Amino acid sequence: MPFVRISLKSQCSPEKRRAIADAVHRALQSSIGIPAEDRFQIIETLGEDMIVDPSFLGVQRDDGMVMIEIHLSVGRTLDKKRALYGNAAAELEGVGVEKRNVFIHLVEKNLEDWSFGDGIAQYADRPPSHV
Amino acid sequence: MPFVRISLKSQCSPEKRRAIADAVHRALQSSIGIPAEDRFQIIETLGEDMIVDPSFLGVQRDDGMVMIEIHLSVGRTLDKKRALYGNAAAELEGVGVEKRNVFIHLVEKNLEDWSFGDGIAQYADRPPSHV
Amino acid sequence: MPFVRISLKSQCSPEKRRAIADAVHRALQSSIGIPAEDRFQIIETLGEDMIVDPSFLGVQRDDGMVMIEIHLSVGRTLDKKRALYGNAAAELEGVGVEKRNVFIHLVEKNLEDWSFGDGIAQYADRPPSHV
Repeated sequence: MPFVRISLKSQCSPEKRRAIADAVHRALQSSIGIPAEDRFQIIETLGEDMIVDPSFLGVQRDDGMVMIEIHLSVGRTLDKKRALYGNAAAELEGVGVEKRNVFIHLVEKNLEDWSFGDGIAQYADRPPSHV
Repeated sequence: MPFVRISLKSQCSPEKRRAIADAVHRALQSSIGIPAEDRFQIIETLGEDMIVDPSFLGVQRDDGMVMIEIHLSVGRTLDKKRALYGNAAAELEGVGVEKRNVFIHLVEKNLEDWSFGDGIAQYADRPPSHV
Repeated sequence: MPFVRISLKSQCSPEKRRAIADAVHRALQSSIGIPAEDRFQIIETLGEDMIVDPSFLGVQRDDGMVMIEIHLSVGRTLDKKRALYGNAAAELEGVGVEKRNVFIHLVEKNLEDWSFGDGIAQYADRPPSHV
């Protein structure tokens, strides 16, 4: 269910991009119980077309920036969201992205707002156990 | 009012991309009453930068994947949303995209969250009949 | 806090893209009190992959189109949103984008839906004064 858009500032290899996407997906599993197979991700590389403040809120950011937009169903507690941010930063650190360069924002939606194929609202019919 | 982002996994011709966009727009008209002229779409092609699970929820997906993000005003019933998913899958099948490869998700917002040009909140002043 | 995605139809120079992004950010500051340093923007150029109706709602649009998606925390009044649309159109006019070509839509979210780095939900802990 989560749909994830990962925006990178700097060009990096396909292997590195994949490692970043894997890291984000592991964080979704460990923090909010997303199944391993519930994976829908897009990666884009922006270069100078990503503009971020280098120090807003006291966080030092540079060209290693990774911005992550996560669309997910409503219902996660603040504690779960905190775990998601923390786990994502930790997993990304493990693949060479510094925590200070990890920007995450969530877009919450309803179960009926997803169709996973075949023209059907799968979650409206059968709510997933992991929401 | 809908703003639609269409993300393709595989490269295809400008004609095919246009046909896909046309199909999505026809589905919006037939399912939730969007006027033909109410059209705002973006298409992007991702290649290996789109990562989707090949069988989540029992749907078999491949390189023909089309992911569609639809921003629309709140207020559609579940039945209308079901019609939207079904019609989009059917219309896309008509232009060569298999139903199993059609992923759709909605982002709902308020009438005052749109400006269609000229710096004005057109729908806040004059709610459209098709919401 | 706002995360801003700016989608251009026509190719333009890095200087012009930057000027457009600057204009949008000035509008956020003057209309809804966003601090100068609270800046997170992405720019993309679509060409024929942006499809917009040339006259929906009586607004004449052409290849100068700029579509702006603004993610921000909930709580702005309709008046503030009107000011945002008006100021964005005016600022963009100042850098050569015609008002009729400025399409804006908002995605509202909660304070806890943001992490500005370091794996922390900064606004959940300390709500900003500018919401």
